[in-house]
Amino acid sequence: MFNPFMAVSPTVPADPSPDLSFSSVFGLLKPQMSELDCFLRLQLEAFEPEIRSMVDYCIDTSGKRIRPALVFLSGWRNEPVVSPDLIKAAAVVELVHLATLVHDDIMDSAELRRNRRTAAREYGAAAAVLLGDALFSHALNLSTQFPTTEVCRAVSDSMRKVCAGEIVQTLRRGTTNVTADDYRRIIDLKTAELFHLSCYLGSHLAGYSESFVSATSRFARRLGSAYQVYDDLADFFGNEQQIGKTLGTDLASGKLTLPLFALSARLPEPSRVQLFEEIQGRRPPDFAERLGQMKELGVFQIVEAEIGQELAVGEAELALHAGEPPTARLLRLTDVLRGQVARLKP
Amino acid sequence: MFNPFMAVSPTVPADPSPDLSFSSVFGLLKPQMSELDCFLRLQLEAFEPEIRSMVDYCIDTSGKRIRPALVFLSGWRNEPVVSPDLIKAAAVVELVHLATLVHDDIMDSAELRRNRRTAAREYGAAAAVLLGDALFSHALNLSTQFPTTEVCRAVSDSMRKVCAGEIVQTLRRGTTNVTADDYRRIIDLKTAELFHLSCYLGSHLAGYSESFVSATSRFARRLGSAYQVYDDLADFFGNEQQIGKTLGTDLASGKLTLPLFALSARLPEPSRVQLFEEIQGRRPPDFAERLGQMKELGVFQIVEAEIGQELAVGEAELALHAGEPPTARLLRLTDVLRGQVARLKP
Repeated sequence: MFNPFMAVSPTVPADPSPDLSFSSVFGLLKPQMSELDCFLRLQLEAFEPEIRSMVDYCIDTSGKRIRPALVFLSGWRNEPVVSPDLIKAAAVVELVHLATLVHDDIMDSAELRRNRRTAAREYGAAAAVLLGDALFSHALNLSTQFPTTEVCRAVSDSMRKVCAGEIVQTLRRGTTNVTADDYRRIIDLKTAELFHLSCYLGSHLAGYSESFVSATSRFARRLGSAYQVYDDLADFFGNEQQIGKTLGTDLASGKLTLPLFALSARLPEPSRVQLFEEIQGRRPPDFAERLGQMKELGVFQIVEAEIGQELAVGEAELALHAGEPPTARLLRLTDVLRGQVARLKP
Repeated sequence: MFNPFMAVSPTVPADPSPDLSFSSVFGLLKPQMSELDCFLRLQLEAFEPEIRSMVDYCIDTSGKRIRPALVFLSGWRNEPVVSPDLIKAAAVVELVHLATLVHDDIMDSAELRRNRRTAAREYGAAAAVLLGDALFSHALNLSTQFPTTEVCRAVSDSMRKVCAGEIVQTLRRGTTNVTADDYRRIIDLKTAELFHLSCYLGSHLAGYSESFVSATSRFARRLGSAYQVYDDLADFFGNEQQIGKTLGTDLASGKLTLPLFALSARLPEPSRVQLFEEIQGRRPPDFAERLGQMKELGVFQIVEAEIGQELAVGEAELALHAGEPPTARLLRLTDVLRGQVARLKP
């Protein structure tokens, strides 16, 4: 869940085709990202001295910071100055995201994230549960530094939804009585919600009209869903070297994602039964076999089409706002994501 | 940590000497507690449908609700009407407390709480991590329903401190390079902080003067510390039947509490080394032996004196405010706690 972004990070070789990577869009956010890093470092002071080094360990700078980028892009004004409100909001969404990563890594018993030991591995699961809680708390505390309760309300609301999505996903692991619609609901809650929050906060705090704020938020929701489907597709069609994580983890952990739904709908009965037994943990997962079947049955194209449709709906949300400064910048993200998907093509 | 209160709960035989139980004080809060229960039930609607039954499981009505009681008592006005603001604040502190219980039970691998399977046991540790998060999020979301960001700020600040206290305690488990001052700092963060928040919110929302709000908050901090020390004392001197939990869990889990500090300071060198080996998990804990030594060396009296001193400082905080309606009611709590401690006397 919430896999870190796949493109460049300081410890990974640079993306060979930068025009199709998120970093190409994020390049224009260098001043913002640099201020965000400073701001996040300063937040250490807010934590009790005993846990500062642990918080510092979590707030590393190697993440892609996609959610902060959405805050900055949706709040874009053609002005040279970096808005302190946007920096703070970006820190809030990043801290919420980092907290969910810390908790996710406990549940997945993950060893590494971004080429370092996870917090759960470094400090133990028990401390990691609490460390995630402390990050959540501080995100909310930062939210209270805005003049009204609006930001805090939006953030806590999204946090609850993200958790609900992850709970449902956790409870459904290893079961096959899940529908593709259940899956869409889960990714809407666990991933799209925080994308939505990021654009809501960015455009709202930048003072854009209610109708534009609502448009960027709806756009972000679609982008978030599309991104999660792409991420789930990469779990089968990705290149381990390139995406920096083991493939086939969804199949191995009994998580029914869209590529698996598409596959199961197209498999003949005996093979489908086998697939379901793999999901249920009653038969060892055969990744190579499943990937072969996906290639044979055109699963890539089916999922790619769903991503494309999701992005098209997202783009349409911004159609009436072509003249606003954030619009063109946000739309570049959909192009980049389409490019990333295309590069997975078998 | 955060053990549920020991006195009466619906499924446990009634306390034989009600004048010395918390329920004697809480009796006057019946209308408030009943409204709080209704309010908490209504909150289920705020959670995504898929997780409502899990939240419902956590928001049971058998807890002692000490923190809500502090909200109501510190915000006491001699008026028959129950303030909706106090109900909401009471729900906030109780939800934060319940969230910490859900997370604590994961860490302690606890099977039962209040005679029911813990959420971790019922839904699995992974879901319980997220369920705790969802409860935290909703507590914060409720906090945003007050007109200003003040409540939300105080709640998120306290939440972070509670987590910091629990992290430090978790990291120190099984180690003996902890001082009694470290212990006091841990219980101040993990227990006293939420007592403090409860009285702050109660008296502040009831419109009391800044100086009175500050006095009740300081009082609550001392009460909270004293309560935690009592709880730790009961882990040795309690009656399993009466307090409804297994004794000796602190020794068994390598947690150095005040009774153990007092004991180790008075043990001759060879015995102290043995005790430290038990804490470090290098020797099986010998509860009967340790309890015998505590009785012999007057540990009960030493710890009782520390509780008494903590309560006396707390009471002194209210000395200048004898005329305010909450004062006498809050002070009854210190008498009750003294009585509870006296009943543990060997």
